[in-house]
Amino acid sequence: MDRLFKNVGLVARHSKSSIVASLRQLADHLAASGVSVLIDRDSVTPAEAGPYTLIDRLDLGKLADIVIVLGGDGTMLSIARLLAPYRVPMVGINQGRLGFMTDIPLHEMLSSVDAILAGQFVPEDRILLQATVMREDAEVMNALAFNDVVFSRGAVGSMIEFEIFVDNQFVYSQRSDGLIVSTPTGSTAYSLASGGPILHPTLQAIALVPICPQSLSNRPIAVNDSCEVEFMLTRGLDARVHFDGQSHCDLMEMDRVLIRRHRNHLRILHPLGYNYYDMLRHKLHWGERLL
Amino acid sequence: MDRLFKNVGLVARHSKSSIVASLRQLADHLAASGVSVLIDRDSVTPAEAGPYTLIDRLDLGKLADIVIVLGGDGTMLSIARLLAPYRVPMVGINQGRLGFMTDIPLHEMLSSVDAILAGQFVPEDRILLQATVMREDAEVMNALAFNDVVFSRGAVGSMIEFEIFVDNQFVYSQRSDGLIVSTPTGSTAYSLASGGPILHPTLQAIALVPICPQSLSNRPIAVNDSCEVEFMLTRGLDARVHFDGQSHCDLMEMDRVLIRRHRNHLRILHPLGYNYYDMLRHKLHWGERLL
Amino acid sequence: MDRLFKNVGLVARHSKSSIVASLRQLADHLAASGVSVLIDRDSVTPAEAGPYTLIDRLDLGKLADIVIVLGGDGTMLSIARLLAPYRVPMVGINQGRLGFMTDIPLHEMLSSVDAILAGQFVPEDRILLQATVMREDAEVMNALAFNDVVFSRGAVGSMIEFEIFVDNQFVYSQRSDGLIVSTPTGSTAYSLASGGPILHPTLQAIALVPICPQSLSNRPIAVNDSCEVEFMLTRGLDARVHFDGQSHCDLMEMDRVLIRRHRNHLRILHPLGYNYYDMLRHKLHWGERLL
Amino acid sequence: MDRLFKNVGLVARHSKSSIVASLRQLADHLAASGVSVLIDRDSVTPAEAGPYTLIDRLDLGKLADIVIVLGGDGTMLSIARLLAPYRVPMVGINQGRLGFMTDIPLHEMLSSVDAILAGQFVPEDRILLQATVMREDAEVMNALAFNDVVFSRGAVGSMIEFEIFVDNQFVYSQRSDGLIVSTPTGSTAYSLASGGPILHPTLQAIALVPICPQSLSNRPIAVNDSCEVEFMLTRGLDARVHFDGQSHCDLMEMDRVLIRRHRNHLRILHPLGYNYYDMLRHKLHWGERLL
Repeated sequence: MDRLFKNVGLVARHSKSSIVASLRQLADHLAASGVSVLIDRDSVTPAEAGPYTLIDRLDLGKLADIVIVLGGDGTMLSIARLLAPYRVPMVGINQGRLGFMTDIPLHEMLSSVDAILAGQFVPEDRILLQATVMREDAEVMNALAFNDVVFSRGAVGSMIEFEIFVDNQFVYSQRSDGLIVSTPTGSTAYSLASGGPILHPTLQAIALVPICPQSLSNRPIAVNDSCEVEFMLTRGLDARVHFDGQSHCDLMEMDRVLIRRHRNHLRILHPLGYNYYDMLRHKLHWGERLL
Repeated sequence: MDRLFKNVGLVARHSKSSIVASLRQLADHLAASGVSVLIDRDSVTPAEAGPYTLIDRLDLGKLADIVIVLGGDGTMLSIARLLAPYRVPMVGINQGRLGFMTDIPLHEMLSSVDAILAGQFVPEDRILLQATVMREDAEVMNALAFNDVVFSRGAVGSMIEFEIFVDNQFVYSQRSDGLIVSTPTGSTAYSLASGGPILHPTLQAIALVPICPQSLSNRPIAVNDSCEVEFMLTRGLDARVHFDGQSHCDLMEMDRVLIRRHRNHLRILHPLGYNYYDMLRHKLHWGERLL
Repeated sequence: MDRLFKNVGLVARHSKSSIVASLRQLADHLAASGVSVLIDRDSVTPAEAGPYTLIDRLDLGKLADIVIVLGGDGTMLSIARLLAPYRVPMVGINQGRLGFMTDIPLHEMLSSVDAILAGQFVPEDRILLQATVMREDAEVMNALAFNDVVFSRGAVGSMIEFEIFVDNQFVYSQRSDGLIVSTPTGSTAYSLASGGPILHPTLQAIALVPICPQSLSNRPIAVNDSCEVEFMLTRGLDARVHFDGQSHCDLMEMDRVLIRRHRNHLRILHPLGYNYYDMLRHKLHWGERLL
Repeated sequence: MDRLFKNVGLVARHSKSSIVASLRQLADHLAASGVSVLIDRDSVTPAEAGPYTLIDRLDLGKLADIVIVLGGDGTMLSIARLLAPYRVPMVGINQGRLGFMTDIPLHEMLSSVDAILAGQFVPEDRILLQATVMREDAEVMNALAFNDVVFSRGAVGSMIEFEIFVDNQFVYSQRSDGLIVSTPTGSTAYSLASGGPILHPTLQAIALVPICPQSLSNRPIAVNDSCEVEFMLTRGLDARVHFDGQSHCDLMEMDRVLIRRHRNHLRILHPLGYNYYDMLRHKLHWGERLL
């Protein structure tokens, strides 16, 4: 049988001991079936890795055909940004609490992974955002985001002012705590807490969600993901832009940030029977009567 | 010169005398330039129509190549549903107050219409929803909506309960005042008042927006407009479904309503220089500082 | 020992058989301790009442010194409106699901009621609203509300328009689905689903909460409960006013509804250790991480 | 005639030249009528003050019987905190744009001030909050707030976690961008942008308004202003507490902040005919149809 995935990368969150044990169990299982196992160097100690090859996290995209993440949505975010440029798919296994992306429970890990490696999966392609911070005519920073690009005031505590353009058309000037530019993936994260809509992962959309806007008529707006969104800071002493809440760049007045959909999608492989709405209902307690 | 639009249909809201005067002015102007003018019989009296052909509103789609509406967004809604099956484009002229769709001011009517008939316009294709009300296995009603299909409790004043499926996948059961299934066009109408997101007209999306849901975690969700949305009433003595707020159908428990994107788009022709965000900013007072 | 409460009224929801059994168990327990038991005639059949005196629900306030309700918040609402004019306190026992007001679980019924009758309780005084519907100069209807007075559009599906005055000062005109005038008790009911704030029961406040207002800057406002709130319907073909969702009155254009705090409070007796916030946290799932 | 106010303090925002001219005009007018004029040293240069006594802003409360502020709501906030301990009333004159508190337009300054000094005014007493930051058992900082005490995450960009107690009763633990503890005065400021209710100035209430809470069921709650609110930071590396957005204190994990109503009210004097709702309607554009 010809295998789809010959080299399987494994990543675990935080070297937590119970997770490392699961990772090692999975590695042994995969190796026994003849797959080549590559383990992220940040996830385990060499002793924990045993006989398996340790590689740099940055090389996962180059060396693996598929990456399996044991952890939570935060780990998925970090790995997604590394894999997208290489078109390598990702699988998420949670450690007890269902995640928006880590949908395989630990006790089904071995059978679910076997099925996926055998080609039985539901693929889901998700967009990433590519953001470029411009100061005058120079590029200051370039980053990917799988959830969101968030503009926010800093510690000083006063609102920031900025202008938004979509495809070079002026949209609005706004005074607020900030703005979330979210992918469908990010629509169930910070964006949701800020009043943004849920966007189905397959929707070709980007949401612009104001954070505590001073003008009460400022509402979330969703635009086509083929658009270029431009943010220009017009006032704010300590504004910042955050990428997936995992890296950031300080902004100066008149800095511009250009946001576009990244050229590649990130493919998540779900087990057969996966249903986005089941996950959503479970995470948001939609089944229950609250009042 | 070969004309794009030889037969121009004219519609005015409510036979209001000042609007009728504008309509007649436009008819004279068009006739003078050699275009064939057809006037909606519901918009004017025969005396007001003068020498021009009166036709039934229902025949506009068959007989006209383009329809010009003098009025507000409400008139645009009615006409849109009639034109969509025939792929006839529509132009909107407002009577003083800018509409979300009627974007040509009265004082620019003649020059704007001339330019549009000469082929100088920005076309914008918008979706409509087609809704089918099913009782057991029989189709009870079939209707189009350009803004929204709205499920709502009636006068009794108690919430209704229903289940939603998207492409046959169960999404949630909900207890609320109702649910708005909205096109991007409708996203700035009732949906917005109910907390829904603004969807850019070109976004291929349908929004599901709960109306005063009992569960506080129920939030608006946008799905791909290629999806089929199914509503099933599980409890509610006087529930109704409304189409663009202009027609409706009483619902019984266990009735199902199937909603799909209509096969045709409705094309709106805007004058050159049209910008959706300018209109939005103007209508929602986004330029102003409210606090 | 001198008893605080010699005559105890008992009410059960809906004559549900398991509830009736609990009611009878409570009646026997109370009678054994020398208290006079009066049972609401609508709650049980004469056979179920056994040896105990059946009285009309409307006479509860006159004949009982305290009323114990077995049921949910809906039953509490009905009884509260009957008791308030007589200053008779009320105790709520739930049938499994904690209510906002029925805070004693069934399995603690006997011991909790004993303690309360022995004077060990946390009293909580709550306001009611008294609403008068005026047509021209005539009073059309007069009603009490413990949760809320709700103005709403009817089945036609178009928004209503109205003006609000507080202590004869014009507050706003509004176009919306309606307006909720809520007591602190009602602030966790329909008002909350419509975006209203939670008001602690001891707060001397009335909340005015718009339902899907067309103007995006219309927000909930809380005013002193000593104020008179006046609603005047300016447009709406099938508007209604609802009292606790249990009775209503159809409104005509130019009808006015005057709302004042009722002269008496309704006293709820809670078991020692009662904590409003514990109940709230439990009902609203505040303990849990949702995302 | 016996005067109510013999010593009048004058404050202007920012030494802006047009405002200084108005201030000097007012000083001359008052002096001519025999009132003693005291000018805040931070508002003008000695040359601009001319013959009038300059005093330290901190001495305004001790030396003046009334203070007139020419500026915006921000200046009113600063002065309110200084005056409250001395029970000295305050009058606000705006420079063109109506403020929530500066309700006298510049062109009516002289006549309005004359009337107020002659005893013709509508007094309005408003609460302030007194906040004490506790680290272990030591008091780290003590501050007043007229609008709000705001707890917020800092520049790092991750949410903070905290617990709230009201009168020593546990209310909730929360993960969010922060929390606003607002007076009725502050309810139309940052609190409103964050989804809080408007509280009428006479309402004896404090609002707790979460900022982008992760749990979707966390809603604003209003409690009696006689309550003590306690905030305890359980997680957050760069959390801060802000007082009226004008001063702040960095917080460490396990710091507690105790918030109580200040013992004195701040009295604002409005011209006769003042109506809170008129001001609100004007500021929030409630008169207008937005859609």
